[in-house]
Amino acid sequence: MHKIYHQVSVIGVGLIGGSFALALKELGIAQHVMGIGRNEQNLQHAVALNVIDSYTTDVAYGVSGSDLVFIATPLASFKTIFAQMSGHLKPDVLITDGGSAKSPLITWAQAALSAQEFQRFVPAHPIAGREHSGVDAALPNLYAGQRVILTPVAQTDAQAIEDCTQLWQALSCKVESMAADYHDNVLAATSHLPHLLAFTLVDLLHEHPELGNVFKYTAGGFRDFTRIASSDPVMWRDIALCNDEAIIRWLTHYQQAIGELIQAVQSANGAHLQAKFLEAKQARDTHLS
Amino acid sequence: MHKIYHQVSVIGVGLIGGSFALALKELGIAQHVMGIGRNEQNLQHAVALNVIDSYTTDVAYGVSGSDLVFIATPLASFKTIFAQMSGHLKPDVLITDGGSAKSPLITWAQAALSAQEFQRFVPAHPIAGREHSGVDAALPNLYAGQRVILTPVAQTDAQAIEDCTQLWQALSCKVESMAADYHDNVLAATSHLPHLLAFTLVDLLHEHPELGNVFKYTAGGFRDFTRIASSDPVMWRDIALCNDEAIIRWLTHYQQAIGELIQAVQSANGAHLQAKFLEAKQARDTHLS
Repeated sequence: MHKIYHQVSVIGVGLIGGSFALALKELGIAQHVMGIGRNEQNLQHAVALNVIDSYTTDVAYGVSGSDLVFIATPLASFKTIFAQMSGHLKPDVLITDGGSAKSPLITWAQAALSAQEFQRFVPAHPIAGREHSGVDAALPNLYAGQRVILTPVAQTDAQAIEDCTQLWQALSCKVESMAADYHDNVLAATSHLPHLLAFTLVDLLHEHPELGNVFKYTAGGFRDFTRIASSDPVMWRDIALCNDEAIIRWLTHYQQAIGELIQAVQSANGAHLQAKFLEAKQARDTHLS
Repeated sequence: MHKIYHQVSVIGVGLIGGSFALALKELGIAQHVMGIGRNEQNLQHAVALNVIDSYTTDVAYGVSGSDLVFIATPLASFKTIFAQMSGHLKPDVLITDGGSAKSPLITWAQAALSAQEFQRFVPAHPIAGREHSGVDAALPNLYAGQRVILTPVAQTDAQAIEDCTQLWQALSCKVESMAADYHDNVLAATSHLPHLLAFTLVDLLHEHPELGNVFKYTAGGFRDFTRIASSDPVMWRDIALCNDEAIIRWLTHYQQAIGELIQAVQSANGAHLQAKFLEAKQARDTHLS
């Protein structure tokens, strides 16, 4: 028996918000999904796709009757959204989100929401995505089997954490909790860094005067490696800006590792190269195969 | 009507050599495939799998009766193999290979082979592969639909080039020719660089004291991005050592691009970040979707 939410507001009806709405409707968890966004055409399209049931461009109005609010916009807009929703929320509302960096969102929520409202915010990060973006890419099973990390703080209401855990579990997710700072550091390494590396590689090859159209001289490995470079540029701009400290730290670590690799190639250190490649292969084969 | 080769020698019976043998047998192009290698157990296993028909560990003996010789060992062994086969080849033999870097192989072939033998060597690079290695991973259709780059030199016999072109075309490959230096530069960018970046990322995260087992906090994008880090370490050691100049040049370009990215994040230059990410997305969507 899942808890039923009479009205659910989804702020930002794209891949992440749309997939959340579809899953909740399919499972009967949401009776009515109110889509909230700035682009009316997109919202109308989402209604036509049956992803949402109604829509508004007014955040305050859109959240006022809802039992569950899910924020799935690019990170930079969270600050404004928290300010717009404050004072218009039901007292027992559950607020959660799909943002890829947690610490800045918590700071903004605490500044913009009342103490009582802030207690109802359970920061969440479902580790799921596709390189395609927008509501047309939304899938009801995007989250099934995936991991969701909650990063509550001391003030977060225990019942809200429990409700949020059960909500994501109802979507067949593996739910766990960790500190927001640790989350932001780990995800900078495992998600933000590879996305930025993929964008950088495609840009380097695309632009480079030494090369013509080199994409035709690539095989399946390159296609796989660069798949994440087709991700949404605005979403990734915001992640880079919001999780800047951890991202700079990991980019710097990576730059140093590339420097060591250059040195190993320059000194023709075959034993070192083979050992490093073998270690990587074994780690990947062990953990991801 | 394909040209039939009475006996074909495949030196190095792994993913690349094994797939070549399987394709030739399936198409009736090879009547008898002689596998040549150093590991007798692997060669016996390849016979049991019907990838090859017979085997030897003696290169001179193994090539002496063959009309077609395909070299598919890690690059560092080519030098010895050319020396071992010289003086034992049929006058009208076609020698080709599957090596990922061409200039050093041409230099070694020219040094080790007689002028007449060297004319019969058509350097080739089928741009195909899998992250799995070894003869068990061999597939008869590995090359179908893929691009094969030939890098003949002025001395290469015109008929040998024509025969080699038709051979790869019979395997449903798109065959084109370019200078070996240009090949090595382009492939350093499109293949060697991403493989080294993937190995480096997995090593960085695997080893790093700040993180625990972070592989569980990864999604499909990370799995795709790092797939090529499961490739054969010895093969990639040899590519790094043989194509060192081009690889160092591209690693250095990439390191500089990472430096610019760090600066853009440090200065919170959202417009620049968004523009770069959008450019990468558009380039990839245009060329690889």
